[in-house]
Amino acid sequence: MNFQLTIVKVGGKIIEEPDSLNALLKDFSRIAGYKMLIHGGGRLATELAEKLGIESKMADGRRITDEETLKIVTMVYAGWVNKNIVVRLQASGVDAVGLTGADMNLIVALKRPVKDIDYGFVGDIKSVNSKVLSNFLSQGFVPVLTPLTHDGDGNLLNTNADSIAAETAAALAYDFNVRLIYCFEKNGVLRNKNDEKSVISTLDKELYQQYKNEGIIKDGMIPKLDSAFRARAAGVPEIVITSAAGLNAGGGTYIQ
Amino acid sequence: MNFQLTIVKVGGKIIEEPDSLNALLKDFSRIAGYKMLIHGGGRLATELAEKLGIESKMADGRRITDEETLKIVTMVYAGWVNKNIVVRLQASGVDAVGLTGADMNLIVALKRPVKDIDYGFVGDIKSVNSKVLSNFLSQGFVPVLTPLTHDGDGNLLNTNADSIAAETAAALAYDFNVRLIYCFEKNGVLRNKNDEKSVISTLDKELYQQYKNEGIIKDGMIPKLDSAFRARAAGVPEIVITSAAGLNAGGGTYIQ
Repeated sequence: MNFQLTIVKVGGKIIEEPDSLNALLKDFSRIAGYKMLIHGGGRLATELAEKLGIESKMADGRRITDEETLKIVTMVYAGWVNKNIVVRLQASGVDAVGLTGADMNLIVALKRPVKDIDYGFVGDIKSVNSKVLSNFLSQGFVPVLTPLTHDGDGNLLNTNADSIAAETAAALAYDFNVRLIYCFEKNGVLRNKNDEKSVISTLDKELYQQYKNEGIIKDGMIPKLDSAFRARAAGVPEIVITSAAGLNAGGGTYIQ
Repeated sequence: MNFQLTIVKVGGKIIEEPDSLNALLKDFSRIAGYKMLIHGGGRLATELAEKLGIESKMADGRRITDEETLKIVTMVYAGWVNKNIVVRLQASGVDAVGLTGADMNLIVALKRPVKDIDYGFVGDIKSVNSKVLSNFLSQGFVPVLTPLTHDGDGNLLNTNADSIAAETAAALAYDFNVRLIYCFEKNGVLRNKNDEKSVISTLDKELYQQYKNEGIIKDGMIPKLDSAFRARAAGVPEIVITSAAGLNAGGGTYIQ
Protein backbone atom coordinates (compact mmCIF):
# COMPACT_ATOMS: atom_id res chain seq x y z
CA MET A 1 0.00 0.00 0.00
CA ASN A 2 1.23 3.48 -0.85
CA PHE A 3 1.66 6.15 1.80
CA GLN A 4 -0.87 8.95 2.00
CA LEU A 5 0.10 12.31 0.53
CA THR A 6 -2.08 15.37 1.09
CA ILE A 7 -1.73 18.09 -1.53
CA VAL A 8 -3.34 21.40 -0.59
CA LYS A 9 -3.92 24.14 -3.11
CA VAL A 10 -4.65 27.46 -1.46
CA GLY A 11 -5.71 30.63 -3.22
CA GLY A 12 -8.16 33.48 -3.23
CA LYS A 13 -8.71 35.69 -0.21
CA ILE A 14 -7.11 33.20 2.20
CA ILE A 15 -3.57 34.16 1.24
CA GLU A 16 -4.24 37.88 0.97
CA GLU A 17 -4.95 38.45 4.65
CA PRO A 18 -2.22 37.65 7.21
CA ASP A 19 -4.73 36.30 9.75
CA SER A 20 -6.48 33.88 7.40
CA LEU A 21 -3.13 32.77 5.96
CA ASN A 22 -1.75 32.11 9.45
CA ALA A 23 -4.86 30.08 10.38
CA LEU A 24 -4.56 28.07 7.16
CA LEU A 25 -0.87 27.35 7.75
CA LYS A 26 -1.60 26.27 11.31
CA ASP A 27 -4.21 23.81 10.02
CA PHE A 28 -1.85 22.69 7.26
CA SER A 29 0.95 22.03 9.75
CA ARG A 30 -1.37 19.68 11.66
CA ILE A 31 -1.99 17.40 8.68
CA ALA A 32 -0.38 14.04 9.40
CA GLY A 33 1.78 12.20 6.87
CA TYR A 34 3.32 13.49 3.67
CA LYS A 35 2.09 16.86 2.48
CA MET A 36 2.65 19.57 -0.08
CA LEU A 37 1.27 23.08 -0.63
CA ILE A 38 0.53 24.98 -3.83
CA HIS A 39 -0.36 28.65 -3.59
CA GLY A 40 -1.79 31.34 -5.84
CA GLY A 41 -1.49 35.07 -5.30
CA GLY A 42 -3.25 36.73 -8.22
CA ARG A 43 -4.91 39.51 -6.33
CA LEU A 44 -1.68 40.49 -4.58
CA ALA A 45 -0.04 40.71 -8.01
CA THR A 46 -2.88 42.95 -9.21
CA GLU A 47 -2.31 45.15 -6.16
CA LEU A 48 1.42 45.58 -6.85
CA ALA A 49 0.73 46.20 -10.54
CA GLU A 50 -1.68 48.97 -9.59
CA LYS A 51 0.89 50.60 -7.30
CA LEU A 52 3.39 50.55 -10.16
CA GLY A 53 0.80 51.94 -12.59
CA ILE A 54 0.67 48.79 -14.70
CA GLU A 55 -2.72 47.67 -15.96
CA SER A 56 -3.75 44.06 -15.19
CA LYS A 57 -5.37 42.51 -18.26
CA MET A 58 -7.42 39.34 -17.91
CA ALA A 59 -9.01 37.03 -20.48
CA ASP A 60 -11.33 34.19 -19.41
CA GLY A 61 -10.11 34.63 -15.84
CA ARG A 62 -6.48 34.19 -16.87
CA ARG A 63 -3.89 36.95 -16.55
CA ILE A 64 -2.35 38.21 -19.78
CA THR A 65 1.32 38.20 -18.90
CA ASP A 66 3.56 40.61 -20.80
CA GLU A 67 7.19 41.14 -19.79
CA GLU A 68 6.39 43.70 -17.09
CA THR A 69 3.61 41.55 -15.67
CA LEU A 70 5.87 38.50 -15.60
CA LYS A 71 8.30 40.50 -13.47
CA ILE A 72 5.47 41.41 -11.09
CA VAL A 73 4.06 37.90 -10.71
CA THR A 74 7.57 36.49 -10.24
CA MET A 75 8.25 39.00 -7.47
CA VAL A 76 4.89 38.46 -5.78
CA TYR A 77 4.47 34.69 -6.20
CA ALA A 78 8.05 33.36 -5.92
CA GLY A 79 9.23 36.18 -3.68
CA TRP A 80 6.74 37.58 -1.25
CA VAL A 81 3.99 34.93 -1.04
CA ASN A 82 6.18 31.83 -1.31
CA LYS A 83 8.86 32.90 1.16
CA ASN A 84 6.31 34.17 3.65
CA ILE A 85 4.61 30.80 3.62
CA VAL A 86 7.94 28.97 3.93
CA VAL A 87 9.20 31.08 6.83
CA ARG A 88 5.92 30.68 8.75
CA LEU A 89 5.79 26.93 8.17
CA GLN A 90 9.37 26.67 9.42
CA ALA A 91 8.29 28.44 12.61
CA SER A 92 5.54 25.79 12.99
CA GLY A 93 8.08 22.99 12.71
CA VAL A 94 7.27 22.14 9.08
CA ASP A 95 10.50 21.80 7.08
CA ALA A 96 9.23 23.63 4.00
CA VAL A 97 11.06 24.29 0.74
CA GLY A 98 9.70 26.85 -1.72
CA LEU A 99 10.01 25.99 -5.39
CA THR A 100 9.01 27.24 -8.82
CA GLY A 101 8.79 24.90 -11.79
CA ALA A 102 12.20 26.18 -12.93
CA ASP A 103 13.95 24.99 -9.77
CA MET A 104 15.41 21.52 -10.37
CA ASN A 105 13.56 21.53 -13.69
CA LEU A 106 10.46 20.61 -11.72
CA ILE A 107 7.70 21.63 -14.13
CA VAL A 108 8.25 22.22 -17.82
CA ALA A 109 5.51 24.05 -19.71
CA LEU A 110 4.77 25.19 -23.21
CA LYS A 111 4.22 28.90 -23.82
CA ARG A 112 0.57 29.06 -24.81
CA PRO A 113 0.30 29.41 -28.60
CA VAL A 114 -1.33 32.61 -29.83
CA LYS A 115 -4.81 31.98 -31.27
CA ASP A 116 -7.49 34.62 -30.65
CA ILE A 117 -5.67 35.95 -27.60
CA ASP A 118 -1.95 36.40 -26.92
CA TYR A 119 -1.63 35.40 -23.28
CA GLY A 120 2.07 36.30 -23.30
CA PHE A 121 4.31 34.43 -20.84
CA VAL A 122 1.66 31.91 -19.81
CA GLY A 123 2.46 28.21 -19.74
CA ASP A 124 0.51 25.00 -20.18
CA ILE A 125 2.14 22.14 -18.29
CA LYS A 126 4.04 19.55 -20.32
CA SER A 127 5.71 17.50 -17.57
CA VAL A 128 6.14 17.27 -13.82
CA ASN A 129 9.35 15.84 -12.37
CA SER A 130 7.68 13.72 -9.70
CA LYS A 131 11.00 12.10 -8.69
CA VAL A 132 12.30 15.41 -7.34
CA LEU A 133 9.10 15.89 -5.32
CA SER A 134 9.13 12.28 -4.06
CA ASN A 135 12.72 12.72 -2.91
CA PHE A 136 11.89 15.83 -0.93
CA LEU A 137 8.86 14.14 0.64
CA SER A 138 10.69 10.96 1.57
CA GLN A 139 13.41 13.05 3.26
CA GLY A 140 10.83 14.83 5.40
CA PHE A 141 10.67 18.10 3.47
CA VAL A 142 7.42 19.81 2.50
CA PRO A 143 7.43 21.37 -0.98
CA VAL A 144 5.64 24.71 -1.35
CA LEU A 145 5.02 25.31 -5.04
CA THR A 146 4.70 28.71 -6.72
CA PRO A 147 2.52 29.02 -9.85
CA LEU A 148 5.47 29.62 -12.16
CA THR A 149 6.94 27.09 -14.58
CA HIS A 150 9.58 27.37 -17.30
CA ASP A 151 9.98 26.44 -20.95
CA GLY A 152 13.55 25.09 -20.68
CA ASP A 153 14.77 27.90 -22.94
CA GLY A 154 15.28 30.48 -20.24
CA ASN A 155 11.72 31.79 -19.84
CA LEU A 156 9.58 31.70 -16.74
CA LEU A 157 5.91 31.09 -17.49
CA ASN A 158 2.94 32.17 -15.41
CA THR A 159 0.90 28.99 -14.82
CA ASN A 160 -2.47 28.46 -13.20
CA ALA A 161 -2.07 27.16 -9.64
CA ASP A 162 -5.10 24.85 -9.88
CA SER A 163 -3.51 23.20 -12.92
CA ILE A 164 -0.19 22.79 -11.09
CA ALA A 165 -2.05 21.16 -8.20
CA ALA A 166 -3.89 18.78 -10.53
CA GLU A 167 -0.83 17.85 -12.60
CA THR A 168 1.48 17.30 -9.62
CA ALA A 169 -1.23 15.25 -7.88
CA ALA A 170 -1.61 13.13 -11.02
CA ALA A 171 2.17 12.67 -11.34
CA LEU A 172 2.52 11.66 -7.69
CA ALA A 173 -0.48 9.29 -7.76
CA TYR A 174 1.85 6.51 -8.96
CA ASP A 175 3.90 6.63 -5.76
CA PHE A 176 1.43 7.88 -3.17
CA ASN A 177 -2.18 7.55 -2.16
CA VAL A 178 -2.98 11.17 -3.02
CA ARG A 179 -5.60 13.36 -1.39
CA LEU A 180 -5.96 16.65 -3.31
CA ILE A 181 -7.66 19.53 -1.51
CA TYR A 182 -8.57 22.79 -3.23
CA CYS A 183 -8.88 25.26 -0.42
CA PHE A 184 -10.58 28.63 -0.94
CA GLU A 185 -12.91 31.13 0.73
CA LYS A 186 -16.14 29.16 0.14
CA ASN A 187 -17.29 25.96 1.87
CA GLY A 188 -17.24 24.05 -1.41
CA VAL A 189 -18.96 24.18 -4.78
CA LEU A 190 -22.23 25.93 -4.00
CA ARG A 191 -25.64 25.43 -5.59
CA ASN A 192 -26.37 29.05 -4.69
CA LYS A 193 -23.30 31.27 -4.43
CA ASN A 194 -24.96 33.40 -1.75
CA ASP A 195 -25.73 30.45 0.50
CA GLU A 196 -22.69 28.89 2.16
CA LYS A 197 -24.88 25.98 3.27
CA SER A 198 -25.76 24.98 -0.29
CA VAL A 199 -22.59 22.92 -0.72
CA ILE A 200 -22.82 20.19 -3.38
CA SER A 201 -21.46 17.24 -1.42
CA THR A 202 -20.40 15.06 -4.34
CA LEU A 203 -19.97 15.86 -7.99
CA ASP A 204 -19.43 13.41 -10.85
CA LYS A 205 -18.89 14.28 -14.49
CA GLU A 206 -22.53 13.87 -15.39
CA LEU A 207 -23.85 16.09 -12.61
CA TYR A 208 -21.10 18.63 -13.36
CA GLN A 209 -22.25 18.81 -16.98
CA GLN A 210 -25.87 19.17 -15.87
CA TYR A 211 -25.04 22.02 -13.41
CA LYS A 212 -23.01 23.76 -16.09
CA ASN A 213 -25.92 23.52 -18.53
CA GLU A 214 -28.27 24.92 -15.89
CA GLY A 215 -25.88 27.80 -15.11
CA ILE A 216 -25.52 26.69 -11.48
CA ILE A 217 -21.77 26.18 -11.94
CA LYS A 218 -20.08 28.95 -13.92
CA ASP A 219 -17.22 31.47 -14.23
CA GLY A 220 -14.08 30.74 -12.21
CA MET A 221 -15.42 27.44 -10.88
CA ILE A 222 -15.25 25.87 -14.36
CA PRO A 223 -11.45 25.88 -14.89
CA LYS A 224 -11.02 24.82 -11.25
CA LEU A 225 -13.39 21.87 -11.66
CA ASP A 226 -11.97 20.99 -15.08
CA SER A 227 -8.54 20.63 -13.46
CA ALA A 228 -10.05 18.59 -10.62
CA PHE A 229 -11.73 16.18 -13.06
CA ARG A 230 -8.47 15.87 -15.04
CA ALA A 231 -6.68 14.86 -11.83
CA ARG A 232 -9.48 12.39 -11.08
CA ALA A 233 -9.22 10.86 -14.56
CA ALA A 234 -5.44 10.60 -14.08
CA GLY A 235 -5.90 8.41 -11.03
CA VAL A 236 -6.03 10.74 -8.01
CA PRO A 237 -8.38 8.86 -5.66
CA GLU A 238 -9.60 11.66 -3.39
CA ILE A 239 -10.31 15.25 -4.48
CA VAL A 240 -12.15 17.79 -2.34
CA ILE A 241 -13.02 21.44 -2.82
CA THR A 242 -13.46 23.10 0.55
CA SER A 243 -12.73 26.05 2.85
CA ALA A 244 -9.70 26.47 5.10
CA ALA A 245 -11.86 25.29 8.00
CA GLY A 246 -12.62 22.10 6.05
CA LEU A 247 -8.93 21.21 5.78
CA ASN A 248 -8.99 18.97 8.83
CA ALA A 249 -12.69 19.00 9.68
CA GLY A 250 -13.93 17.36 6.47
CA GLY A 251 -16.87 18.64 4.44
CA GLY A 252 -16.78 20.36 1.07
CA THR A 253 -17.42 19.01 -2.42
CA TYR A 254 -15.99 15.57 -3.28
CA ILE A 255 -15.13 14.90 -6.92
CA GLN A 256 -16.18 11.44 -8.05
CA MET B 1 41.03 14.01 -0.92
CA ASN B 2 37.87 16.08 -0.96
CA PHE B 3 36.19 17.10 -4.20
CA GLN B 4 36.53 20.66 -5.40
CA LEU B 5 33.59 22.99 -4.85
CA THR B 6 33.54 26.44 -6.45
CA ILE B 7 31.37 29.00 -4.67
CA VAL B 8 30.75 32.17 -6.64
CA LYS B 9 29.31 35.27 -5.07
CA VAL B 10 28.06 37.74 -7.63
CA GLY B 11 26.81 41.23 -6.96
CA GLY B 12 27.02 44.83 -7.99
CA LYS B 13 26.43 45.98 -11.54
CA ILE B 14 26.91 42.48 -12.99
CA ILE B 15 23.43 41.33 -12.01
CA GLU B 16 21.69 44.58 -12.86
CA GLU B 17 22.26 44.41 -16.59
CA PRO B 18 20.84 41.46 -18.55
CA ASP B 19 23.90 41.25 -20.84
CA SER B 20 26.49 41.15 -18.07
CA LEU B 21 24.36 38.71 -16.07
CA ASN B 22 24.02 36.41 -19.08
CA ALA B 23 27.78 36.51 -19.70
CA LEU B 24 28.44 35.73 -16.03
CA LEU B 25 26.01 32.80 -16.05
CA LYS B 26 27.59 31.43 -19.21
CA ASP B 27 31.02 31.55 -17.54
CA PHE B 28 29.55 30.04 -14.37
CA SER B 29 27.96 27.17 -16.30
CA ARG B 30 31.43 26.29 -17.68
CA ILE B 31 32.99 25.78 -14.25
CA ALA B 32 33.80 22.10 -13.85
CA GLY B 33 32.95 20.13 -10.71
CA TYR B 34 30.64 21.06 -7.87
CA LYS B 35 29.47 24.65 -7.79
CA MET B 36 27.15 27.06 -6.05
CA LEU B 37 26.09 30.67 -6.65
CA ILE B 38 25.21 33.44 -4.20
CA HIS B 39 23.73 36.65 -5.54
CA GLY B 40 23.02 40.14 -4.28
CA GLY B 41 20.59 42.59 -5.82
CA GLY B 42 20.71 45.70 -3.66
CA ARG B 43 20.55 48.27 -6.41
CA LEU B 44 17.56 46.56 -8.04
CA ALA B 45 15.80 46.70 -4.67
CA THR B 46 16.59 50.41 -4.43
CA GLU B 47 15.10 50.88 -7.91
CA LEU B 48 11.82 49.14 -7.00
CA ALA B 49 11.64 51.06 -3.71
CA GLU B 50 11.99 54.31 -5.65
CA LYS B 51 9.19 53.34 -8.03
CA LEU B 52 6.96 52.60 -5.04
CA GLY B 53 7.93 55.86 -3.37
CA ILE B 54 9.74 54.19 -0.49
CA GLU B 55 12.97 55.75 0.69
CA SER B 56 16.03 53.44 0.88
CA LYS B 57 17.96 54.12 4.09
CA MET B 58 21.53 52.89 4.44
CA ALA B 59 23.92 52.83 7.41
CA ASP B 60 27.57 51.78 6.94
CA GLY B 61 26.69 50.37 3.53
CA ARG B 62 23.95 48.16 4.98
CA ARG B 63 20.28 48.58 4.15
CA ILE B 64 17.99 49.51 7.04
CA THR B 65 15.15 47.05 6.57
CA ASP B 66 11.76 48.03 7.92
CA GLU B 67 8.67 45.94 7.14
CA GLU B 68 8.01 47.60 3.77
CA THR B 69 11.65 47.27 2.76
CA LEU B 70 11.69 43.60 3.76
CA LYS B 71 8.79 43.05 1.40
CA ILE B 72 10.70 44.76 -1.40
CA VAL B 73 13.98 42.87 -0.92
CA THR B 74 12.06 39.58 -0.63
CA MET B 75 10.29 40.27 -3.91
CA VAL B 76 13.44 41.43 -5.69
CA TYR B 77 16.01 38.96 -4.27
CA ALA B 78 13.98 35.73 -3.83
CA GLY B 79 11.57 36.51 -6.65
CA TRP B 80 12.94 38.38 -9.60
CA VAL B 81 16.74 37.99 -9.30
CA ASN B 82 16.85 34.44 -7.98
CA LYS B 83 14.31 32.93 -10.38
CA ASN B 84 15.81 34.72 -13.36
CA ILE B 85 19.19 33.23 -12.55
CA VAL B 86 17.68 29.77 -12.02
CA VAL B 87 15.69 29.78 -15.26
CA ARG B 88 18.71 30.93 -17.28
CA LEU B 89 21.01 28.35 -15.70
CA GLN B 90 18.45 25.65 -16.48
CA ALA B 91 18.54 26.75 -20.13
CA SER B 92 22.36 26.31 -20.01
CA GLY B 93 22.02 22.76 -18.72
CA VAL B 94 22.81 23.63 -15.09
CA ASP B 95 20.28 21.99 -12.77
CA ALA B 96 19.88 24.99 -10.46
CA VAL B 97 17.72 25.29 -7.36
CA GLY B 98 17.02 28.70 -5.85
CA LEU B 99 16.93 28.90 -2.07
CA THR B 100 16.65 31.39 0.75
CA GLY B 101 17.94 30.62 4.22
CA ALA B 102 14.34 29.84 5.28
CA ASP B 103 13.98 27.00 2.77
CA MET B 104 14.85 23.69 4.44
CA ASN B 105 16.00 25.74 7.44
CA LEU B 106 19.21 26.38 5.51
CA ILE B 107 20.54 29.47 7.27
CA VAL B 108 19.38 30.62 10.67
CA ALA B 109 20.28 34.15 11.71
CA LEU B 110 19.84 36.44 14.67
CA LYS B 111 17.99 39.71 14.14
CA ARG B 112 20.69 42.31 14.69
CA PRO B 113 20.32 43.79 18.19
CA VAL B 114 19.56 47.53 18.32
CA LYS B 115 22.56 49.55 19.52
CA ASP B 116 23.18 52.97 17.94
CA ILE B 117 21.23 52.00 14.84
CA ASP B 118 18.06 49.91 14.42
CA TYR B 119 18.75 47.95 11.25
CA GLY B 120 15.28 46.39 11.37
CA PHE B 121 14.88 42.98 9.76
CA VAL B 122 18.60 42.39 9.24
CA GLY B 123 20.18 39.13 10.27
CA ASP B 124 23.62 38.01 11.41
CA ILE B 125 24.24 34.37 10.58
CA LYS B 126 24.10 31.84 13.43
CA SER B 127 24.27 28.54 11.53
CA VAL B 128 24.44 27.06 8.05
CA ASN B 129 22.90 23.65 7.37
CA SER B 130 25.76 22.32 5.25
CA LYS B 131 24.19 18.84 5.06
CA VAL B 132 21.29 20.16 2.97
CA LEU B 133 23.74 21.88 0.60
CA SER B 134 26.01 18.80 0.41
CA ASN B 135 23.00 16.64 -0.48
CA PHE B 136 21.99 18.93 -3.32
CA LEU B 137 25.56 19.05 -4.63
CA SER B 138 26.10 15.30 -4.46
CA GLN B 139 22.86 14.76 -6.40
CA GLY B 140 24.04 17.05 -9.19
CA PHE B 141 22.02 20.14 -8.27
CA VAL B 142 23.48 23.64 -8.14
CA PRO B 143 22.19 25.77 -5.25
CA VAL B 144 21.56 29.46 -6.00
CA LEU B 145 21.33 31.31 -2.71
CA THR B 146 19.37 34.50 -2.08
CA PRO B 147 20.61 36.93 0.62
CA LEU B 148 17.70 36.25 2.94
CA THR B 149 17.82 34.14 6.10
CA HIS B 150 15.30 33.52 8.87
CA ASP B 151 15.17 33.60 12.65
CA GLY B 152 13.18 30.37 13.11
CA ASP B 153 10.31 32.37 14.61
CA GLY B 154 8.61 33.25 11.35
CA ASN B 155 10.68 36.26 10.26
CA LEU B 156 12.73 36.60 7.12
CA LEU B 157 15.94 38.58 7.66
CA ASN B 158 17.85 40.59 5.08
CA THR B 159 21.42 39.27 5.22
CA ASN B 160 24.58 40.45 3.50
CA ALA B 161 25.38 38.24 0.50
CA ASP B 162 29.16 38.41 1.10
CA SER B 163 28.59 37.07 4.62
CA ILE B 164 26.38 34.25 3.29
CA ALA B 165 29.13 33.35 0.81
CA ALA B 166 31.78 33.33 3.54
CA GLU B 167 29.73 31.35 6.07
CA THR B 168 28.51 28.72 3.59
CA ALA B 169 32.06 28.35 2.26
CA ALA B 170 33.33 27.87 5.80
CA ALA B 171 30.58 25.33 6.59
CA LEU B 172 31.28 23.35 3.42
CA ALA B 173 35.06 23.39 3.87
CA TYR B 174 34.77 20.24 6.00
CA ASP B 175 33.38 18.21 3.10
CA PHE B 176 34.84 19.91 0.05
CA ASN B 177 38.00 21.56 -1.17
CA VAL B 178 36.36 24.99 -1.42
CA ARG B 179 37.30 27.75 -3.84
CA LEU B 180 35.43 30.96 -2.97
CA ILE B 181 35.21 33.65 -5.65
CA TYR B 182 33.81 37.10 -5.00
CA CYS B 183 32.83 38.36 -8.41
CA PHE B 184 32.12 42.05 -9.01
CA GLU B 185 32.62 44.84 -11.53
CA LYS B 186 36.32 45.48 -10.74
CA ASN B 187 39.31 43.29 -11.59
CA GLY B 188 40.09 42.75 -7.92
CA VAL B 189 41.07 44.83 -4.90
CA LEU B 190 42.69 47.90 -6.44
CA ARG B 191 45.55 50.01 -5.12
CA ASN B 192 44.04 52.90 -7.06
CA LYS B 193 40.30 52.64 -7.63
CA ASN B 194 40.60 54.50 -10.95
CA ASP B 195 43.21 52.11 -12.35
CA GLU B 196 41.87 48.65 -13.19
CA LYS B 197 45.46 47.48 -13.64
CA SER B 198 46.41 48.27 -10.04
CA VAL B 199 45.11 44.93 -8.76
CA ILE B 200 46.67 43.79 -5.48
CA SER B 201 47.57 40.21 -6.40
CA THR B 202 47.74 38.76 -2.89
CA LEU B 203 46.58 40.11 0.43
CA ASP B 204 47.33 38.75 3.88
CA LYS B 205 46.02 40.09 7.16
CA GLU B 206 49.08 42.23 7.80
CA LEU B 207 49.06 43.89 4.39
CA TYR B 208 45.28 44.35 4.67
CA GLN B 209 45.73 46.21 7.95
CA GLN B 210 48.48 48.34 6.44
CA TYR B 211 46.37 49.28 3.39
CA LYS B 212 43.45 50.10 5.65
CA ASN B 213 45.66 52.34 7.77
CA GLU B 214 46.95 54.07 4.62
CA GLY B 215 43.40 54.58 3.31
CA ILE B 216 44.13 52.51 0.20
CA ILE B 217 41.40 50.02 1.13
CA LYS B 218 38.21 51.63 2.39
CA ASP B 219 34.39 51.88 2.26
CA GLY B 220 32.53 48.88 0.83
CA MET B 221 35.71 46.83 0.37
CA ILE B 222 36.17 46.55 4.13
CA PRO B 223 33.10 44.40 4.99
CA LYS B 224 33.75 42.33 1.86
CA LEU B 225 37.37 41.68 2.86
CA ASP B 226 36.44 41.11 6.49
CA SER B 227 34.08 38.32 5.38
CA ALA B 228 36.78 36.91 3.10
CA PHE B 229 39.32 36.80 5.94
CA ARG B 230 36.74 35.18 8.23
CA ALA B 231 36.24 32.43 5.61
CA ARG B 232 40.02 32.07 5.33
CA ALA B 233 40.38 31.72 9.10
CA ALA B 234 37.58 29.13 9.07
CA GLY B 235 39.56 26.90 6.72
CA VAL B 236 38.57 27.91 3.18
CA PRO B 237 41.80 27.24 1.24
CA GLU B 238 41.30 29.45 -1.83
CA ILE B 239 39.61 32.85 -1.85
CA VAL B 240 39.74 35.27 -4.78
CA ILE B 241 38.19 38.66 -5.43
CA THR B 242 37.88 39.24 -9.16
CA SER B 243 35.75 40.35 -12.12
CA ALA B 244 33.30 38.21 -14.10
CA ALA B 245 36.01 37.81 -16.73
CA GLY B 246 38.34 36.43 -14.07
CA LEU B 247 35.93 33.61 -13.21
CA ASN B 248 37.60 31.12 -15.50
CA ALA B 249 40.61 33.17 -16.66
CA GLY B 250 42.27 33.57 -13.25
CA GLY B 251 43.62 36.86 -11.94
CA GLY B 252 42.19 39.04 -9.18
CA THR B 253 43.19 39.38 -5.56
CA TYR B 254 44.05 36.20 -3.63
CA ILE B 255 43.41 36.18 0.11
CA GLN B 256 46.22 34.53 2.06
